[in-house]
Amino acid sequence: MNKKHVLALSGGVGGAKLAAGLAAVLSPEDLTIVVNTGDDFEHLGLTICPDIDSVTYALAGLNDTVRGWGVQDETWQTMAMLRGLGEADWFNLGDRDMGMHIARSWRLREGETLSQVTARLTRNLGITQAVVPMSDAPLRTQVGTAEGWLDFQRYFVAEQCRPVATGVRFVGAPGAAPSPAFAEALAREDLGAIIICPSNPYLSVDPILSVDGVRVALAQRRVPLVAVSPLVGGTSLKGPLAKLLGELGKPVSNASIADHYGDLLDHLVIDAGDGADEGGLRARGLCVTVTPTIMRGAEDRERLARVALTAARIKTG
Amino acid sequence: MNKKHVLALSGGVGGAKLAAGLAAVLSPEDLTIVVNTGDDFEHLGLTICPDIDSVTYALAGLNDTVRGWGVQDETWQTMAMLRGLGEADWFNLGDRDMGMHIARSWRLREGETLSQVTARLTRNLGITQAVVPMSDAPLRTQVGTAEGWLDFQRYFVAEQCRPVATGVRFVGAPGAAPSPAFAEALAREDLGAIIICPSNPYLSVDPILSVDGVRVALAQRRVPLVAVSPLVGGTSLKGPLAKLLGELGKPVSNASIADHYGDLLDHLVIDAGDGADEGGLRARGLCVTVTPTIMRGAEDRERLARVALTAARIKTG
Repeated sequence: MNKKHVLALSGGVGGAKLAAGLAAVLSPEDLTIVVNTGDDFEHLGLTICPDIDSVTYALAGLNDTVRGWGVQDETWQTMAMLRGLGEADWFNLGDRDMGMHIARSWRLREGETLSQVTARLTRNLGITQAVVPMSDAPLRTQVGTAEGWLDFQRYFVAEQCRPVATGVRFVGAPGAAPSPAFAEALAREDLGAIIICPSNPYLSVDPILSVDGVRVALAQRRVPLVAVSPLVGGTSLKGPLAKLLGELGKPVSNASIADHYGDLLDHLVIDAGDGADEGGLRARGLCVTVTPTIMRGAEDRERLARVALTAARIKTG
Repeated sequence: MNKKHVLALSGGVGGAKLAAGLAAVLSPEDLTIVVNTGDDFEHLGLTICPDIDSVTYALAGLNDTVRGWGVQDETWQTMAMLRGLGEADWFNLGDRDMGMHIARSWRLREGETLSQVTARLTRNLGITQAVVPMSDAPLRTQVGTAEGWLDFQRYFVAEQCRPVATGVRFVGAPGAAPSPAFAEALAREDLGAIIICPSNPYLSVDPILSVDGVRVALAQRRVPLVAVSPLVGGTSLKGPLAKLLGELGKPVSNASIADHYGDLLDHLVIDAGDGADEGGLRARGLCVTVTPTIMRGAEDRERLARVALTAARIKTG
């Protein structure tokens, strides 16, 4: 059997870029992208799945590359009206993006699972790869702070990651089963590699690892597990990872990333700017690839995807 | 007691114009605008109340006067995304308008009544008059056709009123109580007049009259009831009234309007272009005012509001 199926685990923007790179260099049937749903939340009666949307927009070529999140050619008229009506405006929702939230919320209320809705909406946008929520059950990331546990979006958007984090927890885990397509991908006979996209290990990847049975399945894997580090030049390119590492008492370095994944990890792809980490990582018995990891466009995404696949011993065309 | 409170019954666009005229010439506390909700429907998981929105946008000065419906400076990005996602696009929803539907749907799901939501949202838009749904219970207008009973928006928007109408019915009546503010307005000691705005008698006013107890309360009124005819120059200015009258076997004339309201009506305001109807109407013992009824702008609306109030023996400043 040609073990060439790739299971990618992804969070939001950074992960979505590598997911789009993998989608560009692999046959559609050879890729399953499992996306973090720990950031999902209910807002104004809508179910919002920021990471699924980031991956979806990236794969559909609809993502805004200048702003770095959301949909390109976006406008903000619905939000302006909601503000005029006295509704909460701390979470900014574009008009095009709103179509996604309305469609998803409507289909969920009609009884579809998040997996079914995601399959429907990604297919209608022309995406041929499997984009899969980690679970159809709610599993919600919360960040511990001096004021108590904050829901992820409250911490990330409303508070802009300002509170000092004392911990991270996942409400609903254990108890959240993997989505059918995630469970299937883990059990595939032709599974060839697992790639952890460059997403925040604590906030974006840990929720996926906290889904029932996933840590055990990954520990028992018979295929390479490659992570692309989200650190670039000793810090996080975007988002709170560097700040969070500091607050959790860990060095802001790839050693912390390697420690975090521990035995799960076979190979870490790190940024060329962090080449100094290489020796220490290798000394732990870890395979390391040093390469530029900033993805500015399609070419960067595809090159990094090929590097990650090579590290995982997956052949690409 | 100075009996000066005015209760206006309104449907959509035409009614909303006169409602805005009444709002401009009366003190806010002297006006209750009760709005048809028979056209309301659930679409894509949102509760849409077209007539409440028409009245709200007209009173807030947000209505699009060129297109004749919806919100001014409207865009259509959410709808374009919904179409791309494969969702129904037969009912066009603008981005600004969508803010209204999202806010309303969200508040209803949180447990507010339609009256409470409408009061909240109109107040937040700076509207100081009472804009009131006819009922907080669902009462849904359906139009009988050769293919069976069609929900109102299916008939009106999707089918563009093409099917021949064989009748109109109101699902949920009897059984729909008047909203608290509607019941209160009907019972006010200082109620001075009831004005039926120029809306379709069958499709927009009859639903209001079908709310539990409303016909009886109007029949027992001790104040003038004045209707402004929606016919202009022997036809309907907009909407299916003329076609509907023909299909129901009635002449397209103000005699049909007068017949329809029967004993409820004290005074009919008709368009100057329909002056020929005057004699026949007067011969029935009805008071008639003949005046231009097309409302092109604020001046027209306020002039017609004053004419209707004079017919109802209400003094304006």
